[in-house]
Amino acid sequence: MIRFECDYTEGAHPALMQRLLETNMEQCCGYGLDPHCDNARALIRKACENDALDVHFLPGGTQANVTVIAAALRSHQGVLSADTGHIAVHEAGAVEHTGHKVLTVPNTDGKISAAQIDTYCAEYYADDTHDYIVPPAMVYISFPTETGTLYTDAELTAIRTVCDRWDLLLFVDGARLGYGIGAPGNDVTLPRLAALADVFYIGGTKVGALFGEAVCIRSEALKKDFRYHMKQNLSILAKGRLMGVQFETLFENGLYFELGKKASAQAVRIREALAGKGFTPLGSSMTNQQFFEMPDEAFAKLAETYVFSVMRKPGPGRTAFRVCTSWATADETVDALIADINAL
Amino acid sequence: MIRFECDYTEGAHPALMQRLLETNMEQCCGYGLDPHCDNARALIRKACENDALDVHFLPGGTQANVTVIAAALRSHQGVLSADTGHIAVHEAGAVEHTGHKVLTVPNTDGKISAAQIDTYCAEYYADDTHDYIVPPAMVYISFPTETGTLYTDAELTAIRTVCDRWDLLLFVDGARLGYGIGAPGNDVTLPRLAALADVFYIGGTKVGALFGEAVCIRSEALKKDFRYHMKQNLSILAKGRLMGVQFETLFENGLYFELGKKASAQAVRIREALAGKGFTPLGSSMTNQQFFEMPDEAFAKLAETYVFSVMRKPGPGRTAFRVCTSWATADETVDALIADINAL
Amino acid sequence: MIRFECDYTEGAHPALMQRLLETNMEQCCGYGLDPHCDNARALIRKACENDALDVHFLPGGTQANVTVIAAALRSHQGVLSADTGHIAVHEAGAVEHTGHKVLTVPNTDGKISAAQIDTYCAEYYADDTHDYIVPPAMVYISFPTETGTLYTDAELTAIRTVCDRWDLLLFVDGARLGYGIGAPGNDVTLPRLAALADVFYIGGTKVGALFGEAVCIRSEALKKDFRYHMKQNLSILAKGRLMGVQFETLFENGLYFELGKKASAQAVRIREALAGKGFTPLGSSMTNQQFFEMPDEAFAKLAETYVFSVMRKPGPGRTAFRVCTSWATADETVDALIADINAL
Amino acid sequence: MIRFECDYTEGAHPALMQRLLETNMEQCCGYGLDPHCDNARALIRKACENDALDVHFLPGGTQANVTVIAAALRSHQGVLSADTGHIAVHEAGAVEHTGHKVLTVPNTDGKISAAQIDTYCAEYYADDTHDYIVPPAMVYISFPTETGTLYTDAELTAIRTVCDRWDLLLFVDGARLGYGIGAPGNDVTLPRLAALADVFYIGGTKVGALFGEAVCIRSEALKKDFRYHMKQNLSILAKGRLMGVQFETLFENGLYFELGKKASAQAVRIREALAGKGFTPLGSSMTNQQFFEMPDEAFAKLAETYVFSVMRKPGPGRTAFRVCTSWATADETVDALIADINAL
Repeated sequence: MIRFECDYTEGAHPALMQRLLETNMEQCCGYGLDPHCDNARALIRKACENDALDVHFLPGGTQANVTVIAAALRSHQGVLSADTGHIAVHEAGAVEHTGHKVLTVPNTDGKISAAQIDTYCAEYYADDTHDYIVPPAMVYISFPTETGTLYTDAELTAIRTVCDRWDLLLFVDGARLGYGIGAPGNDVTLPRLAALADVFYIGGTKVGALFGEAVCIRSEALKKDFRYHMKQNLSILAKGRLMGVQFETLFENGLYFELGKKASAQAVRIREALAGKGFTPLGSSMTNQQFFEMPDEAFAKLAETYVFSVMRKPGPGRTAFRVCTSWATADETVDALIADINAL
Repeated sequence: MIRFECDYTEGAHPALMQRLLETNMEQCCGYGLDPHCDNARALIRKACENDALDVHFLPGGTQANVTVIAAALRSHQGVLSADTGHIAVHEAGAVEHTGHKVLTVPNTDGKISAAQIDTYCAEYYADDTHDYIVPPAMVYISFPTETGTLYTDAELTAIRTVCDRWDLLLFVDGARLGYGIGAPGNDVTLPRLAALADVFYIGGTKVGALFGEAVCIRSEALKKDFRYHMKQNLSILAKGRLMGVQFETLFENGLYFELGKKASAQAVRIREALAGKGFTPLGSSMTNQQFFEMPDEAFAKLAETYVFSVMRKPGPGRTAFRVCTSWATADETVDALIADINAL
Repeated sequence: MIRFECDYTEGAHPALMQRLLETNMEQCCGYGLDPHCDNARALIRKACENDALDVHFLPGGTQANVTVIAAALRSHQGVLSADTGHIAVHEAGAVEHTGHKVLTVPNTDGKISAAQIDTYCAEYYADDTHDYIVPPAMVYISFPTETGTLYTDAELTAIRTVCDRWDLLLFVDGARLGYGIGAPGNDVTLPRLAALADVFYIGGTKVGALFGEAVCIRSEALKKDFRYHMKQNLSILAKGRLMGVQFETLFENGLYFELGKKASAQAVRIREALAGKGFTPLGSSMTNQQFFEMPDEAFAKLAETYVFSVMRKPGPGRTAFRVCTSWATADETVDALIADINAL
Repeated sequence: MIRFECDYTEGAHPALMQRLLETNMEQCCGYGLDPHCDNARALIRKACENDALDVHFLPGGTQANVTVIAAALRSHQGVLSADTGHIAVHEAGAVEHTGHKVLTVPNTDGKISAAQIDTYCAEYYADDTHDYIVPPAMVYISFPTETGTLYTDAELTAIRTVCDRWDLLLFVDGARLGYGIGAPGNDVTLPRLAALADVFYIGGTKVGALFGEAVCIRSEALKKDFRYHMKQNLSILAKGRLMGVQFETLFENGLYFELGKKASAQAVRIREALAGKGFTPLGSSMTNQQFFEMPDEAFAKLAETYVFSVMRKPGPGRTAFRVCTSWATADETVDALIADINAL
């Protein structure tokens, strides 16, 4: 079976494995305070065109989401998210476990708008009883979103403006950031993202690394004491150097962006093949995750060879599913899948 | 101004004040372990026709809601509520503060149905990724609901059946229980409620007392260690005897039920007057809270004399509002309001 | 039996009951936003000689302790307390329930010193691994302490200086404040306390009220959003006016101070009687709580008529116990006890 | 500089790196549900001689400690630990962050005794006010302890008996388990540990792996829903297979035990060299961590070549420090250190 079910089925890109091997017996101090982490931080700051960013390496996306939110919010405050946001649905209540309510607004194509956030806040503060309702203090968005879509620069800029209006921190979940930056049609650069968000992260787990997310903090208030929050939220790895070495490799020669660009292009090829056969795309993703629905028989035929994520049964006799490419997807595998799609 | 804005604008029913005065200089041990609390417990068990209920007195509804939920759930579990449920919207995140997610389903006329709960659970356990989604372990409903409506005995029985099917505790918020039990058309008795719910409470704060809610526990698992949870959740009053004395008085001669019945009848008179003038009722409440909308000018005219809770602006030139009666509402005050409504 | 076991065995001082009765049928808005609360706030600010204090009324001491700590600390921070501090031993883990560690230092006669706090912080920041140890951000002391003793003005001033040095908030638990202010030999005034502490509270529950503590906040940072924290920490009473009325009465004509002074004087009379008979005082309390040990037979003789709190068995054949007076203790009762002590 | 400061300065044992490389491009499902994890589980169960153990792989020791405690305890319960226990001092309040108080008793040579636990519980339940004090529900011990010492089989058996008496779960932190099992004089086998503890873990991070701890659960109650707690406590790694592959390699041919035995033997050689020169050992460790004190000048001389962990200044002119060996320590490095010690 060939797995297209998610973007973390393999280990790490061979270049990263090689560097882990080469540095394996170096003696380093722990907890991310070693020279590899420092070098990776410098490379990331350079790629973000912002020397003042604090950069921390956390083992995974859930850790990054929860630690950032727990560190940023006072105990009575909540975080605003799309109803499809990862923190709203797939963190097993880890955000609430730290005491914070996730406040949701309905998504459109996986996204929320500046206008929605503005209305939410205006109505909140207009409510006489708002003392008894959780106040929003942060906006959480994903780039790409959970459905593979992308905010435009204009959309992000508008959200930034609204965040400033209502004193909200803007947090961008970049678990799949590489696939977004490299997607066809994307107009958001990494420096631009770093300038708009108060805090965001660059996902490694899904984009070439064994594990690891680089949390980048622009907000001065959030910088303070962040390592305490990492420790308390179970997000410090003893051998932090492992993430330093991997992010060094990903950012030395643009490997991170190269991997992202290629996988999104592969996914769009699959999208076009499926759409070309008349199957219905679910949403407008141009990134490495594609969502489609098709008749059960067609799906069953493909499922003889390939593993996809089944999302739901959208109607009798139909299956909605996700197909993912990743840094590890070979062109020939994509060719084979497309051939099989065309043969349906 | 005459206040109809909520049901806790006055102190306590004079009979309760009198008993507090009479017992004021008695020396009692603290924390609800005194003879008055014991006597009140016995009276409540008798009214519930269940000698095995554990009864605890907590100062208010938020304390009762949070303590029961925190005591009942393991840390990863969530509580299912109507989207209009008090715990979902008006507890300032106090439930999440204890680490638990409030899971919501859409209400109809303030209520949720057995079928909704059943579907929610079926879909939850059918989801392959449910390990990463908060599992429901309790159903929270209000009787009366936040919009004044009532579950029928048949509806509660069906919910009980679904709770048994999915291993869910059933928790009934009875902050306004007296107004529900005594409402025209209600077919749920207190013994019946005590037999269906795993835990519920009898609200005193809004039904004749200075403060105090009697939490009644039928679930053996929940009985264990409940006082620890009360203390930890800031819900033990040093002079617990104050609630014992008040609940003794409310339950000795049926005063609690008498107060509830009268206030709901008064509210229904107001409902009929408003509806009789062609104003639109919002929902089907037969209890002490009535929700209506009317043109702004009519509302402004009434607002010269009376205070109501404004809910929202349902459309241009219209106001939605709540009018509440309580144990303290005099018949003449209701007569006056009705006269003024009729004069609009 | 005559109870000397604690200082909350009766209801409220008759003057408070009278005012509650007189105001019982007034219609007030809820949650502490009514005119009685506002008036009580003004009276308290005047007594504190500080017009800028924010004053909030919470139902009890546990609520005050937990809400203040939870509101003041960021999630990774801890609170420093004597090992005998109420929050360290008798809150059933309510502080930890909000996520904060209570850090303890050994007490001397119920107190901790500026030097201890200074050393604790110096050692903390000197430790290379302090990123993995909870940082102190607040000092909690009780006035009077749990063993009835009092800090002098000089001691409090020194603690204030150390708090400023290490950026620590100073929180004074005044559950029995009246008994401290009025104690023989005390040199700390209420205005002085209000000038030294960042936040403190004036206990009503143990000093004449049915319940209620007045939390007074001087720290600007802590003032912000405090009502959210009250709600989230289950410390808002629906009928907040009840506390407003009681504190009005306590502070209108100095009743609060009068009650405290008298009870401490009574306790000192008992102390002198016990010491005069050769029994061993435990600590140097001049306030309403006295701690002694005596042979079991002597204790048993007194226990035929009086209820005390047994603390522990300090050795074979000996009992350590607490005797409390309160605003409700009659002079004749004290006379009787002293006569019985002298007759041992 | 040669680092003896801790036992996680290098990457992973070369055999593990080799296997990670070989399996790197295998497609596996995520979250520890892959065949490598299943195989590792089988090997661990076999080594523990218990087919009924549930085995979960978590990224590190803090994650293991917090997840086990949070999963095991109801919200009001606490965990009993030596005052030197890792959870009491070095987890940055992560246990309290989940709402639980760490209850401490004084250590002797890093250990606590069955008698201490028994007394603690007896006094707890004898206290009339214990409803307001956190109840112990779990005992946490480390094997080896934080000071390198080991419980004997007899000591563990006695603790087990006391845990049964007071209904306490027994949790053994095995972050350095390999170094304990393989230490000279140790009489506790892995199967014996697995039979005595309700839950324990086998540390990989410090004993040959890049990262990873194998949590082994014998308690049926704790087995239920453990994966939810892992997710909620940020302890599920997306590519769980990485830990499966590593633990497979560690347990296939006894590599884990071999690495532990060798490092402890090396440490004992260093101990003997230091003691032979008349320096004072701090505690009786026979495992990979050795604690000594010596004059500052001697320490400074060694510190020219070697990095140790300075613990504290035990007196004027003296330094207390820790020296660690690990799976990565070469015999020649130990020889060199011993030569330099002998040359002091």
